[in-house]
Amino acid sequence: MLRSTSLFRKLTSPLSRAGTSVRSYQYKAPVKEMIFCSEEVHGFQEHYKSLKNLSGEDASPEMVKEILEGMGKFCETELFPLNEVADREGCTWVNPTTIKTPAGFKEAYDQYVEGGWQGLAYPEKYGGSNLPMSLALMKSEIMATANWTWSMFPGLSKGAINTIMLHGEDYLKDVYLPPMIAGNWTGTMCLTEPQCGSDLAQVATMAITEDEGKTYSISGTKIFISAGDHDFGDSAGSADGQVIHCVLARTPGAPEGTKGISLFLVPKYLVNEDGSLGELNNVGVDRIEDKMGCHGSPTCQMNFENSKGWLLGTKNQGMNHMFTFINTSRLGCAIQGSTAAELSHQGAVWYAKDRLAMRALSGKKNPGHEPDMAADPIIVHPDVRKNLLTQKAIAEGGRSMIYECAKVADRLADNEMAGAEGDEAAKKAAEEADDEMGFLTPILKGFLTEKGVDAAHLGVQIYGGHGYIKQNKMEQISRDVRIGAIWEGTTGIQGLDLLGRKIFLQKLKPLNSHCSKVRSFCWDTIMNAPTSAVRNHAIKVALLTLEWQYLTARIGLMAKDDREAIGSASVDYLMFAGYTHCAYHWLQMEVAAEKGLAAGTGDKDFYEAKVQTSSFFFDSMLPQTKTLAKTMLSPTDNVMKMKVSQFDVA
Amino acid sequence: MLRSTSLFRKLTSPLSRAGTSVRSYQYKAPVKEMIFCSEEVHGFQEHYKSLKNLSGEDASPEMVKEILEGMGKFCETELFPLNEVADREGCTWVNPTTIKTPAGFKEAYDQYVEGGWQGLAYPEKYGGSNLPMSLALMKSEIMATANWTWSMFPGLSKGAINTIMLHGEDYLKDVYLPPMIAGNWTGTMCLTEPQCGSDLAQVATMAITEDEGKTYSISGTKIFISAGDHDFGDSAGSADGQVIHCVLARTPGAPEGTKGISLFLVPKYLVNEDGSLGELNNVGVDRIEDKMGCHGSPTCQMNFENSKGWLLGTKNQGMNHMFTFINTSRLGCAIQGSTAAELSHQGAVWYAKDRLAMRALSGKKNPGHEPDMAADPIIVHPDVRKNLLTQKAIAEGGRSMIYECAKVADRLADNEMAGAEGDEAAKKAAEEADDEMGFLTPILKGFLTEKGVDAAHLGVQIYGGHGYIKQNKMEQISRDVRIGAIWEGTTGIQGLDLLGRKIFLQKLKPLNSHCSKVRSFCWDTIMNAPTSAVRNHAIKVALLTLEWQYLTARIGLMAKDDREAIGSASVDYLMFAGYTHCAYHWLQMEVAAEKGLAAGTGDKDFYEAKVQTSSFFFDSMLPQTKTLAKTMLSPTDNVMKMKVSQFDVA
Repeated sequence: MLRSTSLFRKLTSPLSRAGTSVRSYQYKAPVKEMIFCSEEVHGFQEHYKSLKNLSGEDASPEMVKEILEGMGKFCETELFPLNEVADREGCTWVNPTTIKTPAGFKEAYDQYVEGGWQGLAYPEKYGGSNLPMSLALMKSEIMATANWTWSMFPGLSKGAINTIMLHGEDYLKDVYLPPMIAGNWTGTMCLTEPQCGSDLAQVATMAITEDEGKTYSISGTKIFISAGDHDFGDSAGSADGQVIHCVLARTPGAPEGTKGISLFLVPKYLVNEDGSLGELNNVGVDRIEDKMGCHGSPTCQMNFENSKGWLLGTKNQGMNHMFTFINTSRLGCAIQGSTAAELSHQGAVWYAKDRLAMRALSGKKNPGHEPDMAADPIIVHPDVRKNLLTQKAIAEGGRSMIYECAKVADRLADNEMAGAEGDEAAKKAAEEADDEMGFLTPILKGFLTEKGVDAAHLGVQIYGGHGYIKQNKMEQISRDVRIGAIWEGTTGIQGLDLLGRKIFLQKLKPLNSHCSKVRSFCWDTIMNAPTSAVRNHAIKVALLTLEWQYLTARIGLMAKDDREAIGSASVDYLMFAGYTHCAYHWLQMEVAAEKGLAAGTGDKDFYEAKVQTSSFFFDSMLPQTKTLAKTMLSPTDNVMKMKVSQFDVA
Repeated sequence: MLRSTSLFRKLTSPLSRAGTSVRSYQYKAPVKEMIFCSEEVHGFQEHYKSLKNLSGEDASPEMVKEILEGMGKFCETELFPLNEVADREGCTWVNPTTIKTPAGFKEAYDQYVEGGWQGLAYPEKYGGSNLPMSLALMKSEIMATANWTWSMFPGLSKGAINTIMLHGEDYLKDVYLPPMIAGNWTGTMCLTEPQCGSDLAQVATMAITEDEGKTYSISGTKIFISAGDHDFGDSAGSADGQVIHCVLARTPGAPEGTKGISLFLVPKYLVNEDGSLGELNNVGVDRIEDKMGCHGSPTCQMNFENSKGWLLGTKNQGMNHMFTFINTSRLGCAIQGSTAAELSHQGAVWYAKDRLAMRALSGKKNPGHEPDMAADPIIVHPDVRKNLLTQKAIAEGGRSMIYECAKVADRLADNEMAGAEGDEAAKKAAEEADDEMGFLTPILKGFLTEKGVDAAHLGVQIYGGHGYIKQNKMEQISRDVRIGAIWEGTTGIQGLDLLGRKIFLQKLKPLNSHCSKVRSFCWDTIMNAPTSAVRNHAIKVALLTLEWQYLTARIGLMAKDDREAIGSASVDYLMFAGYTHCAYHWLQMEVAAEKGLAAGTGDKDFYEAKVQTSSFFFDSMLPQTKTLAKTMLSPTDNVMKMKVSQFDVA
């Protein structure tokens, strides 16, 4: 069980932290929003009860609230103040095995480990609390909002844990999982090399069999390795901590391209029989990158030189195995996008209520201020409100999109466990969940990271010149979230993944079943619509799913004669899918809010804000689909005809 | 006349500069593009001949080319390498009267002064070369692309010179203009105060009459003062240089709000009778800001304490007078947007040709690379091309939009000179040019800064993870251009200026006359269209101007019952205007390119690239108007109904 009570007590005690004299916003965990979204929109409690292997029944409403509020307090008081510090201070390369993280990161991580937070959703067998993944994801959401780069350390560990859990032999699991799940050891994924990122077919790191195939000798250079090293320390008392790398490499004679890549577990320190740390495993950091943002996270160039590694899963199946990790990370990117929108929105609301400039066009207004101030707070101005509402629609729409995926992830994990014990129906259910996840992942990753960038842009905009100044803590969000649309596959790669791999290669099946599901929700809603707005919105969503299928067919037909049609359409197509999917979620939220209003027991203002934000989304944001529907079908000649030399400076 | 030849010789001699070992792109001044745009699209030579007071006849094709190539060389070899240095190093506050600029800035500025570049378009009477403003603007464009923050020093000086020239008494002009036009003294504008930026009605800096009204004692704090101080030195041998501040302040008993603000000239050093520098004038820098970007430009908090100032123009007319400066600066911001697109595009093209990843969907391609490389260069992929073409369409469309304004600025200045000597027709022509400028300025400023941000975003995107790394010189462009959409009035302010002040307050006159002019070009083009593409594009532009007028009427009608309709529509309206205006310019460029192709004498590839980029703009970018036409009419209830408290975190 979760070692919660003592930690919660500790986390909620008042903290004295050297404060800054600058007046600025303070992050607050939106627990009520999260519970509305998980419970009233997505029925998590009912969903938990349906889980067979994950201890859903432990995730009672009280427990969920306790977890979110405990994590909220920790993030508000500990992680959020470190966010700006981390940006200013960054990480320091001390030597190949020591990277210094920003002040306070280690201490905060210690508290996180002490509370047993890392093991929330992992099997008791390995020391976890066996709660549903979705709950761990809600916890991660709060951390990601308060301090994105700090949250990357536990986030990447989670990906490594999942990979080892799914593909590792039992003896590897027994050695590596308990300390990783406890949080004492962290993990990474090592994919990118200097010559290749998106195109992993070019991976050149070598793995040579040793020890009669039991172990491998790994040599090569990996770049852009987030959390590749740190100074968090570990339970064994080592100064700089154990890191478990999941490394893609080639064995001698392996087939060319992606079909010849295998996945290896390579620890920074070799592990002794008794579980204590042994010698360094020739794993070192050559340098860390100087980046636009995310300064709290060391982006390492890792050097492996005859480092000892263990095969994870099947030889030459590394790319497939790695997708476990990549999908976790892509969902993590989606969270990065929507949480950036949330944080930027919180900062912008604070400022828009505080800053006085000009009079409302419809006459003097001064909510929350002395009468007869020199001007009105800028929150009275329609353009400022539109920017705030856009952020709100992205943050809350994104949350709902992610929680739906979290449920799918629960079902996937739950049925995989049952499937592993021979339950054939569960195996099939796991496959279905996997397909659903595969279909939704590029949409969420692509759409929410791009929209997160937009939302952070608007947050800076609301502050005007003050948004450009570092100490006001808005421009950092823009810089930090920018990488979201790039790593784990750029938006371009997500577009190709969705349209090429997930839709056309699967003969439209995931698209058709998704659209049918959405339309069936829409028809029900139309029949029982509490308001004409809900009815209109449901009609819009239903029609958009039909347009989505129609556009898919159009592109498919174009692609028959013109192979470039898919690549040319893919990003616009992805964004069309994103807007449509987000509309489906705003519809669900609006229905839930109207239900709350009809019941008359909850917070009227809260529900009304949901209903109004939904109308804003449908009227002021969703019409972007009109442009996308047109541009995705543009002639490819316009794109492909230009000769390479014609791009040169004239 | 321009002291050109010696400088050009100097600038074109090979320079040894400590190089970096990182392979990355090198900026190249697009002289051919610039000449195409100014000559073949906008007929600058003919326009120059029509000028009466500016010595247009000196601006021969040879002279223009010599100036652009000379400046190009200077910017490629001197300014561009300093761009990254400036970002890394930033400015340093040494003491209240000494700000250290990045290494190399002073030396580059010395060369600029030595060449007489600052005086290019100013009267010979004050030491200038009396060439047309438009030529100075083309010169600025090259500097702005190569090194935005360095170019801000001469840029802000230009604004101060224009202000003094137009509003200063003769004795002030005689003292201040010659050294400013020589470049030895620089200038600033001091508007913003801690409590107010967009809303200058709140200005609190005081100006008290002294010396029987000849001078004033100025006290107050101004923030966000770009180039507020520096270490460039001056001809009088002072260590830190003279700076002439144009300061907004209130005289005692002045009316409240913007009607009680006057404009003052406040030098950093008092000037002796003989023109040499005297005592410090109690003007000091309290601090410089730590910003997202633009690190090469010191953003100063200026403190004036009983500093001696001279009234510029009429008392209480400061806001009106300041608009001379503000309009120059807003056009400068538009240039910031389009030049960021240009620089980012140059960097992205270089990378897209160099970086290998994956195969083209339509089969192996390897332009410019060895056969049988591991993969194709990413410039073969449609999504990468779309990003490149989007950048190109913004950079070149923006250039054309700016050059049109530059012609208007020439006409304005030329007729103002004649008008000042009593020519009534010229006075009227100046007023018309001023109206046209006033109408176009918010469109260019708002649209091109936002699109410049988008273009820089795409440049980072094309580099993938490498775009996020500082040394690759792409993310800096994103950070530097970000302020463009904020300073000199945010995009929201530009939207209100266009729709409220420039259109509705003037009873649609500037809009209607602009649209008529555009349509008359379109009808001519339709009648004589060389290709069906040109014809279709001309029809599109004509229809868009009609839709523009229709939408204006719709908003006007909405606003009769609902005062918030204007504010709510304004930014979408502004962007609609921007796309429409950009389409008009792509049409003009396409017509000019087709003319070039038909003549058969020029560079066929160059003209074809123009035609193709135009088609790309019309098919893949312009459809954004479809969304904007819809969203600008969204019900204001969605925006205004939400209570302020409903924005709080739940």
